[in-house]
Amino acid sequence: MSTSRKPQGGTTRRGFLSAAGGAALAAGAIRPAVSAGPENLPPNVPGWSRYLGSGVDAYPYGQPSSFESHVVRRNVAWLTASVESSVNFTPLHELDGIITPNGLCFERHHAGIAEVDPSDYRLMINGLVDKPMIFTLDDIKRFPRTNKIFFLECAANSGMEWRGAQLNGCQFTHGMVHCVMYTGVPLKLILEEAGLKTNAKWLMVEGADAAGMNRSVPLDKALDDCMVAFKMNGEALRPEQGYPLRLVVPGWEGNMWIKWLRRIEVGDQPWHTREETSKYTDLLENGKSRRFTWAMDCKSVITSPSPQAPLLHKGHNILSGIAWSGRGTVDRVDVTLDGGRNWRPARIDGPSFDKAVHRFYFEFDWQGESLLLQSRAIDSTGYVQPTKDELRAVRGTNSIYHNNGIQTWHVRGNGEVENVEVS
Amino acid sequence: MSTSRKPQGGTTRRGFLSAAGGAALAAGAIRPAVSAGPENLPPNVPGWSRYLGSGVDAYPYGQPSSFESHVVRRNVAWLTASVESSVNFTPLHELDGIITPNGLCFERHHAGIAEVDPSDYRLMINGLVDKPMIFTLDDIKRFPRTNKIFFLECAANSGMEWRGAQLNGCQFTHGMVHCVMYTGVPLKLILEEAGLKTNAKWLMVEGADAAGMNRSVPLDKALDDCMVAFKMNGEALRPEQGYPLRLVVPGWEGNMWIKWLRRIEVGDQPWHTREETSKYTDLLENGKSRRFTWAMDCKSVITSPSPQAPLLHKGHNILSGIAWSGRGTVDRVDVTLDGGRNWRPARIDGPSFDKAVHRFYFEFDWQGESLLLQSRAIDSTGYVQPTKDELRAVRGTNSIYHNNGIQTWHVRGNGEVENVEVS
Repeated sequence: MSTSRKPQGGTTRRGFLSAAGGAALAAGAIRPAVSAGPENLPPNVPGWSRYLGSGVDAYPYGQPSSFESHVVRRNVAWLTASVESSVNFTPLHELDGIITPNGLCFERHHAGIAEVDPSDYRLMINGLVDKPMIFTLDDIKRFPRTNKIFFLECAANSGMEWRGAQLNGCQFTHGMVHCVMYTGVPLKLILEEAGLKTNAKWLMVEGADAAGMNRSVPLDKALDDCMVAFKMNGEALRPEQGYPLRLVVPGWEGNMWIKWLRRIEVGDQPWHTREETSKYTDLLENGKSRRFTWAMDCKSVITSPSPQAPLLHKGHNILSGIAWSGRGTVDRVDVTLDGGRNWRPARIDGPSFDKAVHRFYFEFDWQGESLLLQSRAIDSTGYVQPTKDELRAVRGTNSIYHNNGIQTWHVRGNGEVENVEVS
Repeated sequence: MSTSRKPQGGTTRRGFLSAAGGAALAAGAIRPAVSAGPENLPPNVPGWSRYLGSGVDAYPYGQPSSFESHVVRRNVAWLTASVESSVNFTPLHELDGIITPNGLCFERHHAGIAEVDPSDYRLMINGLVDKPMIFTLDDIKRFPRTNKIFFLECAANSGMEWRGAQLNGCQFTHGMVHCVMYTGVPLKLILEEAGLKTNAKWLMVEGADAAGMNRSVPLDKALDDCMVAFKMNGEALRPEQGYPLRLVVPGWEGNMWIKWLRRIEVGDQPWHTREETSKYTDLLENGKSRRFTWAMDCKSVITSPSPQAPLLHKGHNILSGIAWSGRGTVDRVDVTLDGGRNWRPARIDGPSFDKAVHRFYFEFDWQGESLLLQSRAIDSTGYVQPTKDELRAVRGTNSIYHNNGIQTWHVRGNGEVENVEVS
């Protein structure tokens, strides 16, 4: 088929494509073909319309199209000393909706991917319980289950940006977030099975990886909405997400969502592990650290246009992005095209779940002018996503974690997009 | 770690694991380890807790655990003459929640998988429109988008079961259904862009595969909730699901959800294509066929226990299954353990979306007795899923399509499960 025909701008009813693309055909050019016989095929019929393709035995577990091979998680070699204690990033600029497919959920490991044999998997509960217990995976699957969609964000997401615009692409500035449907057991039921002693106040949750990753979780949170999950988006957890069992700590920093969960110790005070003292705390200007910064504050980012997703057409365009809050739902997202002088409401589309990613869209006309794009999310508590400067005024610039500041993309006249800051 | 310790039945608060599993430990056996140093590790520490695993550069696009290699789509060689015009089945017995991961969505092709180059992709609109048009994929992505979760069921799902219990496993009896989140453009907007003539009443939708798959869709449905989708579960459509663009016809038989959509012709009457005359119609006992049986009626199936997911433990067990309706939400699912003498309500868990899969659970105690398991769904229109005999009384047994009858699984004393019928 050809697209060399001249577009007929301004003649459409809705006019989405009035400035470019969406080629209109002279009515006479189309024969009213009613059957699919070869004599009625449009011109330049491609091979895929002529020959049989692969059969149903070709891909027992399906894979993306080879034309999508650029849509992958990417790591940044200079960011960490080793690939085993490192991170890669979700390609947010290529995704849509609110679900992250399992193969593209970012990874953050402290000792690489623990490849756990599920038949040898055990979860131990000890400490201030009536009856210390060890569970097999089958044991866990005999508790009542629940299904919930939650975002997971690494506390260090956007961490490089504390010191100004650094990384070029929302995959790298904001790609330590994903959102999937978990199936698992409310942690409350597991703890009740072991029986909590009256002085129980805290949990120490520990992973089976070689880092023995561990964090303290207050009991109130554990009894509220934490889960031990064995499925993500319907299938078994992926190895890099904690197969066969991970902790789900809705709305709280990803580091607490212990993967390959092997032990829960119940205690009466926090453990102050490495991961909540020398790491995953925010060092303020006065030399003190913020303590227990668990909840991920409301945040948003425009995923397209963005440095990896430039503007391709003048005329009608769609701006898209995601927003989330560790404290509830996202009630509103505003968008500016001029660096914050004028804000207009974006359209939130799709399901709105507590502590889950929300998708927003904003339609705009572009004629090649320079743009400064920003999004600003407001959650169900009324909290408004701050600017990066507002955050710095309170927290200084020593921080690595919890940067939920407003992101700015500069769209150049040629449609290219770069990471910038505006004051 | 060891699980050879004797379970202490009857001492738990909730008692989920009272009959087997969930080994309780003598309290003295556990040292109150507070750090993750080697001296505090539990006994028999496995390799994944001792050595570094793969790094973040290992799997740019992630894959399931090697321990899950049995969780795949499966075809049945004798069912069709070729693998290019055939089907494979979603492993429902291994899944949970309401989302089907993209790699496990069943496939039904009529000429194999069309491997379409997205840069050469075109969608043509012709017929009773003001302005015939050809769209590129980029053109489509400039229309306003929406995100919706829908089930897709092949009309032939459970088709073998018209003549009694045939296939052993819900993967094979019910695995021609999946449920994903689609991102796409309301078809209404595309049609409005071309401009519908006043006598427009029907669409002929046509695929770019070598089968030139085509179906007639009434305009009212097209304008109501149909979409042209380019994403599933956040990422690009998979090749076998119509990459780069498929039609979404919520609640209606999968055959109408044209994959690799290349053309939409607008007309004033149905086309009566092969796929809605000699195929995808139900031949009744009187020699006449049911005409235009588009909507998939309310249906459910117990996915575990099922022939591929036997009962492993006496005592507390979880029954799980899925239910869906092409006419709305599922409001209620009842479950029987005794072939229909006693029905009890199952618990529907997770989001309830219009024309989407719903997940249900039922907890029961099993002491090795023979069971006849059934589920019965009721949708938001009040329609009650019928028995297979009730369907046969109305439609006879010539049919292949639209078997939404109640499925029975016989659980034997050893926990094995088989496909049976009860009258």
